[in-house]
Amino acid sequence: MPLSLSQSSIPVFAIGLNALSAILDKAEAFVAAKKADPAGFLHSRLAPDMFDFTRQVQVVSDQVRRGAARLAGVEPPSYEDNETTFAQLKARLAKTIAYLQTLDTKTIDAAADRDITFPLGGGRTGQMKGGAYLNHFVLPNYYFHLTTAYDLARHAGVEIGKRDFIGSIPLKLV
Amino acid sequence: MPLSLSQSSIPVFAIGLNALSAILDKAEAFVAAKKADPAGFLHSRLAPDMFDFTRQVQVVSDQVRRGAARLAGVEPPSYEDNETTFAQLKARLAKTIAYLQTLDTKTIDAAADRDITFPLGGGRTGQMKGGAYLNHFVLPNYYFHLTTAYDLARHAGVEIGKRDFIGSIPLKLV
Repeated sequence: MPLSLSQSSIPVFAIGLNALSAILDKAEAFVAAKKADPAGFLHSRLAPDMFDFTRQVQVVSDQVRRGAARLAGVEPPSYEDNETTFAQLKARLAKTIAYLQTLDTKTIDAAADRDITFPLGGGRTGQMKGGAYLNHFVLPNYYFHLTTAYDLARHAGVEIGKRDFIGSIPLKLV
Repeated sequence: MPLSLSQSSIPVFAIGLNALSAILDKAEAFVAAKKADPAGFLHSRLAPDMFDFTRQVQVVSDQVRRGAARLAGVEPPSYEDNETTFAQLKARLAKTIAYLQTLDTKTIDAAADRDITFPLGGGRTGQMKGGAYLNHFVLPNYYFHLTTAYDLARHAGVEIGKRDFIGSIPLKLV
């Protein structure tokens, strides 16, 4: 049995977003224990011209919401980028997970050879087959921002390890 | 048509490893232009107890080599972790890509429902179905170390952007 597109996207995103939400909890507790200004952490960056922590979390949501919606053949909803607290970022992740569950998995599964057309920024428009779009565009973009959010938290001193990043996966110890 | 496991792994890894190799070129040129000690960059870390840049690159190779070999039902080869230069790290990536091309894609494609057993570290052994192993273990681990290597280069000041990370993908501009 091969992979279905929905199985290679929806649960992957849900596990990662839940893991990121738990990392947000640890980051919030860390900032509180240091009696630091949460804004200092939420606006931290690895380089002056990289997205800050808040934007990385927003973009994780954007990538999976838009990617999955396009595979499902529907218009992705826009979210306002107005989060200023840990709680608001967690709410955005929860809302994104709930949205992913509304998508029609059968339409996603049928998208492997369908042309997906999507904006690339700078007024450009890209097109890829659905399978390639998931494997070579949505997944790398998703993991890029998810990992960078983790790296920012780790760089700041939050006590997390790779297991926090991997999250709750269907792993059996034998 | 659904996704095949081989299409969701081998070309994904080859594109990412080639992208990382090009990032190594840019990092090497950056270090040379600064007349800096390459070791300073190669041993840089985002946190004192995280892997350094060299180890991140080595582990990218380990994750995809071992992951793909296990899906192909063969014993993954060990590589010595003895790289001390950009050129040696690039050679490891090239060797890894060449190894991936030797794997039997038909066996990989048939692995979705096969139990994959693998060491987890700390003497523990994990087991997952092949499809879940790729989606929830190999791919997140691969992207975790690939992105962290990118983030280290970006943090150091190497002039790269997300397009360098995404690499050469089958994208058509329309």
